[in-house]
Amino acid sequence: MSGTLFGIGLGPGDPELMTLKAHRLIRNAKIVAYPAPLGGDSFARSIAADAIAPDAREIRIEIPMDVARYPAQDAYDAAATQIATALSAGGDVVVLCEGDPLFYGSFMYLFARLSGRFQTEIVPGVTSVTACAAACKRPLSARNEVLTIIPGTLDEGELIARIEAADALAIMKVGRHLPKIRKVLAAQSLTENAAYIAHASLPNQVSLPLSQAPEKAPYFSMILVTKGGDPWLS
Amino acid sequence: MSGTLFGIGLGPGDPELMTLKAHRLIRNAKIVAYPAPLGGDSFARSIAADAIAPDAREIRIEIPMDVARYPAQDAYDAAATQIATALSAGGDVVVLCEGDPLFYGSFMYLFARLSGRFQTEIVPGVTSVTACAAACKRPLSARNEVLTIIPGTLDEGELIARIEAADALAIMKVGRHLPKIRKVLAAQSLTENAAYIAHASLPNQVSLPLSQAPEKAPYFSMILVTKGGDPWLS
Repeated sequence: MSGTLFGIGLGPGDPELMTLKAHRLIRNAKIVAYPAPLGGDSFARSIAADAIAPDAREIRIEIPMDVARYPAQDAYDAAATQIATALSAGGDVVVLCEGDPLFYGSFMYLFARLSGRFQTEIVPGVTSVTACAAACKRPLSARNEVLTIIPGTLDEGELIARIEAADALAIMKVGRHLPKIRKVLAAQSLTENAAYIAHASLPNQVSLPLSQAPEKAPYFSMILVTKGGDPWLS
Repeated sequence: MSGTLFGIGLGPGDPELMTLKAHRLIRNAKIVAYPAPLGGDSFARSIAADAIAPDAREIRIEIPMDVARYPAQDAYDAAATQIATALSAGGDVVVLCEGDPLFYGSFMYLFARLSGRFQTEIVPGVTSVTACAAACKRPLSARNEVLTIIPGTLDEGELIARIEAADALAIMKVGRHLPKIRKVLAAQSLTENAAYIAHASLPNQVSLPLSQAPEKAPYFSMILVTKGGDPWLS
């Protein structure tokens, strides 16, 4: 009997934003796996740290973050092999995922490699998108509005088109793309409609109007834009 | 000293998908408010039921669900007045919100009326979007994909345009709009790419390929569509 692969959403960073279910499964886990940058600390592990049993076996999934050949498929191959060995031996494996496992996460690359052979269960988590809305206390989308979630990594032309077409939008993975995003929003007269949030839910959380945002943004930052489509919210 | 207004996300329905923070705040709350259909049971209250203290005061926010003049602004006026009275008397008020308070929820109409006068805190929750992805075990969006969240209430022309422009999409509030959505997806040859999910995370959860979905969908149902933009996920 093989074990089950669990993909567990941890939420945006505050350990108290883990779900009760995530907390229970992590507390009881004998094998815990998590992504980590090469040689660096794992953000996912830091969220769950207090829940991990002291005698749990830990599998670090080392992902090179700066390789040109994104998304580092060799690293996922190696991690999947290691996890498959544990599952085949009958152990359940709990994979810790920042935010939600199936929302812009690296878990889906493990899932694609393993779900054909092993039982899987996904525990959804609070995403950074709603955590950022909570941080800046702005409704994300109401009534009949379409909400568009855009990676800041898109090129300028694509960004312009997507932002123009959107009712309300969340721009993720801002980081080094901040100057480009600022420029596109300014050209569409949306700077005043935009909020900048970094490290949502963590002690170092920053939440500012975009016009007051710093010059440099961390990778875990986001810009939320509404166009005022709901007259009842003004 | 006035009390604080808390907007608490409860997640999609399974009480174990509440966050630890939501659970703590609800357990300790002396005044709990929640939306309910006129004369009917409150879904939000049902999610949180086991956490509500037996001696907590409960404020039902009765929202007429079928009024033409959406979104029932008179009901929110009345509820805001009642909650303002409690806050002014110094009590904190915890408002229970299905999913996330600022993501297509009715809480934002209370928030718009009260946040200028009272301290507020928002606790984000797991949305139905990621809960549906977990239910059908499909990645929502990866890498550089744009994720578009579309209310099924849009008219057919708008739906066609939005679906055509999207990379990956979640169509919410399916309900009686299912035939229209089916037709639009079929016309774009996307039926095979679409999953149907109802009552995500609850005991009566349904998760099927759209081609096998029932004729009638409940309000709490969703369709997820991916267009296969990430070659590493096939």
